[in-house]
Amino acid sequence: MLSQVYRSGFQPFGQRLLPWVQSPGLSRSHRVQPSAIRHVRSWSNIPFITVPLSRTHGKSFAHRSELKHAKRIVVKLGSAVVTRGDECGLALGRLASIVEQVSVLQNQGREMMLVTSGAVAFGKQRLRHEILLSQSVRQALHSGQNQLKEMAIPVLEARACAAAGQSGLMALYEAMFTQYSICAAQILVTNLDFHDEQKRRNLNGTLHELLRMNIVPIVNTNDAVVPPAEPNSDLQGVNVGLFDSPPGSDDAKLIDIFYPGDQQSVTFGTKSRVGMGGMEAKVKAALWALQGGTSVVIANGTHPKVSGHVITDIVEGKKVGTFFSEVKPAGPTVEQQGEMARSGGRMLATLEPEQRAEIIHHLADLLTDQRDEILLANKKDLEEAEGRLAAPLLKRLSLSTSKLNSLAIGLRQIAASSQDSVGRVLRRTRIAKNLELEQVTVPIGVLLVIFESRPDCLPQVAALAIASGNGLLLKGGKEATHSNRILHLLTQEALSIHGVKEAVQLVNTREEVEDLCRLDKMIDLIIPRGSSQLVRDIQKAAKGIPVMGHSEGICHMYVDSEASVDKVTRLVRDSKCEYPAACNALETLLIHRDLLRTPLFDQIIDMLRVEQVKIHAGPKFASYLTFSPSEVKSLRTEYGDLELCIEVVDNVQEAIDHIHKYGSSHTDVIVTENEKTAEFFLQHVDSACVFWNASTRFSDGYRFGLGAEVGISTSRIHARGPVGLEGLLTTKWLLRGQDHVVSDFSEHGSLKYLHETLPVPQRNTN
Amino acid sequence: MLSQVYRSGFQPFGQRLLPWVQSPGLSRSHRVQPSAIRHVRSWSNIPFITVPLSRTHGKSFAHRSELKHAKRIVVKLGSAVVTRGDECGLALGRLASIVEQVSVLQNQGREMMLVTSGAVAFGKQRLRHEILLSQSVRQALHSGQNQLKEMAIPVLEARACAAAGQSGLMALYEAMFTQYSICAAQILVTNLDFHDEQKRRNLNGTLHELLRMNIVPIVNTNDAVVPPAEPNSDLQGVNVGLFDSPPGSDDAKLIDIFYPGDQQSVTFGTKSRVGMGGMEAKVKAALWALQGGTSVVIANGTHPKVSGHVITDIVEGKKVGTFFSEVKPAGPTVEQQGEMARSGGRMLATLEPEQRAEIIHHLADLLTDQRDEILLANKKDLEEAEGRLAAPLLKRLSLSTSKLNSLAIGLRQIAASSQDSVGRVLRRTRIAKNLELEQVTVPIGVLLVIFESRPDCLPQVAALAIASGNGLLLKGGKEATHSNRILHLLTQEALSIHGVKEAVQLVNTREEVEDLCRLDKMIDLIIPRGSSQLVRDIQKAAKGIPVMGHSEGICHMYVDSEASVDKVTRLVRDSKCEYPAACNALETLLIHRDLLRTPLFDQIIDMLRVEQVKIHAGPKFASYLTFSPSEVKSLRTEYGDLELCIEVVDNVQEAIDHIHKYGSSHTDVIVTENEKTAEFFLQHVDSACVFWNASTRFSDGYRFGLGAEVGISTSRIHARGPVGLEGLLTTKWLLRGQDHVVSDFSEHGSLKYLHETLPVPQRNTN
Repeated sequence: MLSQVYRSGFQPFGQRLLPWVQSPGLSRSHRVQPSAIRHVRSWSNIPFITVPLSRTHGKSFAHRSELKHAKRIVVKLGSAVVTRGDECGLALGRLASIVEQVSVLQNQGREMMLVTSGAVAFGKQRLRHEILLSQSVRQALHSGQNQLKEMAIPVLEARACAAAGQSGLMALYEAMFTQYSICAAQILVTNLDFHDEQKRRNLNGTLHELLRMNIVPIVNTNDAVVPPAEPNSDLQGVNVGLFDSPPGSDDAKLIDIFYPGDQQSVTFGTKSRVGMGGMEAKVKAALWALQGGTSVVIANGTHPKVSGHVITDIVEGKKVGTFFSEVKPAGPTVEQQGEMARSGGRMLATLEPEQRAEIIHHLADLLTDQRDEILLANKKDLEEAEGRLAAPLLKRLSLSTSKLNSLAIGLRQIAASSQDSVGRVLRRTRIAKNLELEQVTVPIGVLLVIFESRPDCLPQVAALAIASGNGLLLKGGKEATHSNRILHLLTQEALSIHGVKEAVQLVNTREEVEDLCRLDKMIDLIIPRGSSQLVRDIQKAAKGIPVMGHSEGICHMYVDSEASVDKVTRLVRDSKCEYPAACNALETLLIHRDLLRTPLFDQIIDMLRVEQVKIHAGPKFASYLTFSPSEVKSLRTEYGDLELCIEVVDNVQEAIDHIHKYGSSHTDVIVTENEKTAEFFLQHVDSACVFWNASTRFSDGYRFGLGAEVGISTSRIHARGPVGLEGLLTTKWLLRGQDHVVSDFSEHGSLKYLHETLPVPQRNTN
Repeated sequence: MLSQVYRSGFQPFGQRLLPWVQSPGLSRSHRVQPSAIRHVRSWSNIPFITVPLSRTHGKSFAHRSELKHAKRIVVKLGSAVVTRGDECGLALGRLASIVEQVSVLQNQGREMMLVTSGAVAFGKQRLRHEILLSQSVRQALHSGQNQLKEMAIPVLEARACAAAGQSGLMALYEAMFTQYSICAAQILVTNLDFHDEQKRRNLNGTLHELLRMNIVPIVNTNDAVVPPAEPNSDLQGVNVGLFDSPPGSDDAKLIDIFYPGDQQSVTFGTKSRVGMGGMEAKVKAALWALQGGTSVVIANGTHPKVSGHVITDIVEGKKVGTFFSEVKPAGPTVEQQGEMARSGGRMLATLEPEQRAEIIHHLADLLTDQRDEILLANKKDLEEAEGRLAAPLLKRLSLSTSKLNSLAIGLRQIAASSQDSVGRVLRRTRIAKNLELEQVTVPIGVLLVIFESRPDCLPQVAALAIASGNGLLLKGGKEATHSNRILHLLTQEALSIHGVKEAVQLVNTREEVEDLCRLDKMIDLIIPRGSSQLVRDIQKAAKGIPVMGHSEGICHMYVDSEASVDKVTRLVRDSKCEYPAACNALETLLIHRDLLRTPLFDQIIDMLRVEQVKIHAGPKFASYLTFSPSEVKSLRTEYGDLELCIEVVDNVQEAIDHIHKYGSSHTDVIVTENEKTAEFFLQHVDSACVFWNASTRFSDGYRFGLGAEVGISTSRIHARGPVGLEGLLTTKWLLRGQDHVVSDFSEHGSLKYLHETLPVPQRNTN
């Protein structure tokens, strides 16, 4: 009803009265790019005419990411933002940073407008100071005591304060905007100005004229002439309704200023300390603005960590504050998806292992059965990406019949290994007679998997989640939208055979990864699948949610003085050259000093030359050479290519120290025939994987025989090294008693703890 | 040598020339409390005389926590802080927030002084604007094209800019300080002013006079008359040497302003974008200031997340920027301690299990052997705490012979359970012939344990770390300083029998917990031991480091319609009343609807009345009652006291839904005689501990038979529920081969993966 009223109260006005500033270079359907704005909105080429509005009102933006196209932005400052905590005087730092942000946006070519309060607070502080000064001088003459603080502060009348403060406030704005070469103008209004049509039309004209001339209008209520504020309505001073007020405007005390009918505008409120009453009024105002096609964001403008960039962040589309949109979102919100994944996952976890396997088998079938549809969707992605993505990325994006076939085979393997995951008993203890404790495996909860380009990730990751009974949120790359959508639909189809369709959710590509990484109440574990840069970004962004993965694989191989000549070359070649881009490829070769200038050493160098591996010399190695290959910039480098750092060490201890200092605790190897030295190395190197006479490349879930690989973790908490399905599980404790209470086990109680270990059902080994 | 030169260059000046403002109420040896300052430094009671300095120079502060006592603070703003990124114009937001912070400190009664640059930048922006304006008008007349951006900007001479900018800059400062009722004054200086003794004396006098009158002096170089800046020395404009310049001042381009000889002063630099040259000069200046007893902090003033509170944070003692202290810290820094704990822990981990047990036994012996010394130290703590701590806290702080004895018994139990912790083989796989994989337990690395008041925590936690081979940083409460110190010494004595003394480090009580929680490169796991408030605080403060613990224990008991009358009362009483403050005590009783108005129900209510448990009614329960006990405020409340929430549910599914909605995944119980219902509950409730017909209070490491308890975790990653020594362990993978490379296992290779599960040595079960 509200919506109807607002819309009807608004439509005629928009069509009849609103003049419309049209820039000639700007097509109306065209979304304005900042660069385009800059070009168009320069001084000299805006015609000095106003074109009457002849179209119906536009829609507000459907999504935050469109906010960057906003052409006209109204920033409305709540009084809590403008005034200090003690409500006496202005919050100068905040105010200046708002002016700074408004100026940045204005200088990008947007039309900015400020609605401010603050005259009363400013005046209050000023008058108070004056009165105190005159009092204190008198006091100082009559007494040596410090009574400045204790002096009674006269109650200041708000209108007088406003009168005293308005000029100073504007002078301050002037001074600040001048800093950015921006001209500001003052507009004082009262509620009545909106009810008189002529006045309203004048006001409207003035504002447009100012905006056209690149001037930032600063709008404030004329507090010196308005009726005194009611108790508990400290928002009154800043409430401004412009151009029109909705029916029932007496109720809605706070009406955000807005421009109807212009799709490229957005309104910000910067709130804080708002009680429910205040908030309610703001929401009402926001809805009203929305009716006119103006997007609204209400955000906290007082938090010290964000106030310096809250406005620019919002315009950049970051998830700050509340975004109001008239357009109903196409699907559920990400929060709703999280809830669905949670409850869907819980249902999944209570299925029989065979049922989970069945779902995965069904998904594998669908991948081959629906091949044509999948490839069609993939073709769409490839066509859209053509020319925008580099060849290797296009290759990763593309699917084929053979890719789908091997994907299906992989899924069936996951199904097989899923039989023994959830509900496995790890430990059984008899606490007392008829009181038995059991520790069993359970899913972690809700996983967020973020993957880039490769759409084949989706069914694979989904199968892992299903096998381990976890709820799953999937966030794929934009470039694979069509492929991901159909693969997700097939996954849900497979899930629905046991009624758990919602356990796997595909998150809208518009959601920012950074925002997802903050949903710590919703997500239990984040798994990034992609470049090490992606992993690093996510580790940085994740707030309070563990991230499983590794951002670096700086793997070492130490060639001991007692290494076998035959083995070394084989091992180094495999570790470095077999697939240099892998995280488990070799990066640094540590060579025992005694091996320098031996045939073994020459053999290694010759092999590296043949394989065209570029050698970087560590500082010690460089000092041994007369001619030196390029010296390393850092001993802590992951080349990920046919490049290798060689360094010399005096003994196994020095090798270990080097690894601890420069390594990433991923995989480190010793090559030696001396078992004692090897065992010393195995025990002392503090890495996830430590090998003896084996290639670094074995560091892999499949090669370790873990079945499906979830990833490789260099974390020291939870899973470490190559992680199989077990890494997606946690445990819970089940205690079955009769009527057992702990007081029976107290010092004088009748029972004693037995703590008897009971046999555990043997693990199904493949 | 540097130190000698600076000191000698400085001494005579300080003694001869410096007037000394003495406030009569202020004893010199007294550290000024902010409240004392406020009292003393009021307008009317500072005498209008200057007392010549007659004492030798004070020492600078030894620790950041003393910075809050600083009476006189000089804030020096680097040009990067004052000017915008484009080096043209002022960074208004930053500047305003600095003025805001300076004002807050000034209004606390401190003497603030500002050293600023910015005149050149301000003037540059102003002149540029003027020139552009006049050019653009001409251009606009001649052309319709927008050439504003492309117009050649004339190169502006720095001195002209300074002249044009100085007045505007000061007007801006004036306007901003006026906001806080603070009067500011301008002082322009050149390098020469410091070399002429008469001038220097005048300057000195002026500054003191200004400070005495509560005016904030704003010092700037007189850029309009100084020689033009050298290339790459953009710091020159802000470099000010006041009162004296050290010998060789031509080298040290940047000399921080400072007041010699006044122990209660501190200098801040706010840096950013400082190249090595600039930083070096700043450090030099800082050292020089230190020689005069002035503490110095250099911090980044441009980071948007901190710039709003960087100065006040520093004064509050937070670890922001670099703190320079002349006083050599008494012990190693916390970073050094972290390194020692890391390497000590690694040594500890390679000891034989028997050796680790030996250390713990030795520590147990020391606790009883050195009883007298321990109790003496504890007595000191108690005496100092007397009257400052409440009785229950004093009780927790106090040690006794019997406490020490039972502590020693506990330690011997930990020693026993330590035999089988590190190096246990969890899994063995034959990957191929002669290629065997082993997964073994290893310590997590370095633990940070934060504990409150109870000093008996220290040996207990140390024993757990030793048993699991982890390095340990201990952070105890200030109130237990003496007790903790001796207990730590004894721990190190025990550790030294196997040469690993440094594996356990006691962190200085002055280190802020918040700062420790940020050392993610150094610490692998944080374990808080204390109130749930402590846990919450630490979970909030920990940046990128996992925290093991739980902040809430909202435990439920669901009484099913088929519950046995006899059992229910016993179970509820034990769960709620046995120790209501425990985290595993019952908070919410969920009762099946059918039980309302049955004898069973009456029996529960009667028992609760006898036990004096206050009942809160859930909304559904309240609706069933004619007379209602107080309705709950929130169904998610941990009472921790003799209070209980009762709610009614229709069936087991509703009970489970309630638990998922309001619980904290700690411990939840079903009471029923129906096994099927019980198993449904056990499988479906997603909590760390789920019990059937047993008291919630069994949720405990000791009662579970885990040996030593590390804590209870409600995290879903790593350990969950009651955590024994195993929670302090992770795993590593050892692979032993001959010369195995992965390319032999490729499609056309000669080898195939066997992935044969090998038997694992059976676990030593107690």
